[in-house]
Amino acid sequence: MPAADTISFARGAPSLDIVDVEGLKAAAARAFDNDPGGTTAYGTAVGYVPLRQWIADKHGVDPSQVLVTNGSMQADAFLFETLVKPGDPVVVEKPTYDRTLLNLRGLGADVSMVSLEHDGIDTGELRDLLRSGLRPKLAHVIPNFQNPAGYTLSLDKRRDLLALAAEYGFVIFEDDPYVDIRFSGEPLPTMLSMDEAGAVVYASSFSKTVCPGIRVGYLVGPGALIADIQKLATNTYISPNMVAQSLVYEFCASGAIDASIATVKAALAERVAKLTDALDRELPEARYTAPEGGYFMWVELPEEIDVARVFTEAQDRGVAFVKGTDFLMEGGHNTMRLAYSGVTADQIDEGVARLAAAVRAVEAGAAA
Amino acid sequence: MPAADTISFARGAPSLDIVDVEGLKAAAARAFDNDPGGTTAYGTAVGYVPLRQWIADKHGVDPSQVLVTNGSMQADAFLFETLVKPGDPVVVEKPTYDRTLLNLRGLGADVSMVSLEHDGIDTGELRDLLRSGLRPKLAHVIPNFQNPAGYTLSLDKRRDLLALAAEYGFVIFEDDPYVDIRFSGEPLPTMLSMDEAGAVVYASSFSKTVCPGIRVGYLVGPGALIADIQKLATNTYISPNMVAQSLVYEFCASGAIDASIATVKAALAERVAKLTDALDRELPEARYTAPEGGYFMWVELPEEIDVARVFTEAQDRGVAFVKGTDFLMEGGHNTMRLAYSGVTADQIDEGVARLAAAVRAVEAGAAA
Repeated sequence: MPAADTISFARGAPSLDIVDVEGLKAAAARAFDNDPGGTTAYGTAVGYVPLRQWIADKHGVDPSQVLVTNGSMQADAFLFETLVKPGDPVVVEKPTYDRTLLNLRGLGADVSMVSLEHDGIDTGELRDLLRSGLRPKLAHVIPNFQNPAGYTLSLDKRRDLLALAAEYGFVIFEDDPYVDIRFSGEPLPTMLSMDEAGAVVYASSFSKTVCPGIRVGYLVGPGALIADIQKLATNTYISPNMVAQSLVYEFCASGAIDASIATVKAALAERVAKLTDALDRELPEARYTAPEGGYFMWVELPEEIDVARVFTEAQDRGVAFVKGTDFLMEGGHNTMRLAYSGVTADQIDEGVARLAAAVRAVEAGAAA
Repeated sequence: MPAADTISFARGAPSLDIVDVEGLKAAAARAFDNDPGGTTAYGTAVGYVPLRQWIADKHGVDPSQVLVTNGSMQADAFLFETLVKPGDPVVVEKPTYDRTLLNLRGLGADVSMVSLEHDGIDTGELRDLLRSGLRPKLAHVIPNFQNPAGYTLSLDKRRDLLALAAEYGFVIFEDDPYVDIRFSGEPLPTMLSMDEAGAVVYASSFSKTVCPGIRVGYLVGPGALIADIQKLATNTYISPNMVAQSLVYEFCASGAIDASIATVKAALAERVAKLTDALDRELPEARYTAPEGGYFMWVELPEEIDVARVFTEAQDRGVAFVKGTDFLMEGGHNTMRLAYSGVTADQIDEGVARLAAAVRAVEAGAAA
């Protein structure tokens, strides 16, 4: 039973203090004022046309390459349903986002996990798999501030992946919801922008820059594939949410999104600094790479610590996280994902103190 | 090539003049003011909790029996994916909504169409099919102001259907998006409210009472089935659109929805009167039953008129409709669906005059 005042490092969602509620309210009013017809009527499955154009401009592509969906999870589901048949080999990172893993396995895909290093997926390991005969339909990669690890794919590895995709004929699914919330280091180009072979399908979302409840995400990819997915989207829901997409368009076009991103970045940078300070003080044996953006940090405890037991002790002490094993098909018993997006800075010291107490309790139990 | 000023009897969507844009704008502001956290955060797949409760109260069921979705098309898709496997027999009305037919056939269902009479599905014909061995997984029925026909299922036939479902063990999928826009005659109880065997799954939507662009629909059914569908919904999109559902909740709770429904009913009643007057004057050979609610009227022309040819002649004259054959697997070449929801009253006389001219042109061609 979690304590009533549980501090949650579990959920990858923003705390309310970094959501621009007043800006959203104003954008909603402008949506109904500026385009009452387009906002209230059925649209088509490509999404709200001005938002589709805004996204196309952001990525320097033709609007026919963009499909705006009810959140990027729905975009993923459409892409997987279009490309992946039961038994098809697919590659994902190890560890990777638990829902991606679940959905690919639910479709009957033959999932190969390729190790994630601190500079992204191990392209050498992937190359060896390809040379030994693996022919994946797609490789799913979260290039920036990966969920769950917080790691970022280096420029060299982005080039390697594109070369491998061209040579072995697979789709790179570049799943990039965190790209705009980099708070340190230099931005890297998307693989979409580097792609000359039409091998990349790109997904992103407004969940981290506007708010999650708005459920607006999108796909960018080759026009023919986007047209196929559009048919599937039409049959699924006629059109996505026009009210939400018109609101997001107004939020973007007015520049409110830039102010919102600045708020989010400043808060997340502060939280990471607090979190790493607290870990270094309370749990100096914990190993991690401090993320340069995004919501998540991956923490490895010494090999002999069973995080499943820490999880239970932590619940009793009022602190939550997600076990690393949830993001893996095997191994990782000594790892955890800490999300710092949903905790305010003043909760972090106390949360880490509780976490350290949970680890000490497990150590004491093991020694007893 | 349609004429630039085409009058459309094709689309089942409201004209902008009967959408309460100011009411929606005010409801959006209240959503962000009254529940900023619930409106902007991820919810769960059951939908926005206060709206779920409002719907449960409306139907006199427990909230655990309700799942609020991104539009009722998405609700249908979840239900079909949960209940219907390739090769499963299902029953639909003849004619029926084209997207339902498409989606069921897309899933590989073995679709049997049962004749629709002016008082609803022919339960005698269905009984004969069941006695001869048909064992459908579900029967899809649009009980009020059916799409495409505009007909309403009588109370006796509602009882018959429930008895057949209990005897032969199939689910009645009561697809009821138009129920609240009855503008003449007496309301009938839903089969959901009459059901004692847990045989009914009910779907409805706010597309016709709030606006289509808001994409909010729902399912009501047995708790165990709703729980199964909730899992599928979680894996598909984590949660539906909370901003939209919070807005709809505020629109409902404030009573704005009642004013909106009154506006819609008054407009639709006027349009039906105009439409039937114009048809009686311009196309006296057309047969129809004037609907008591909803968006659609089914028109039969004399057997020798090929509506596919009327369709082309109508396009040239700037009037659009949907061919009856789109709602059938065979037959219906002399039928059409006229939607009066998207035309203003002053467009109807001109639209029907153009339609009559198209029919006369086909007759002249046949006689030549």
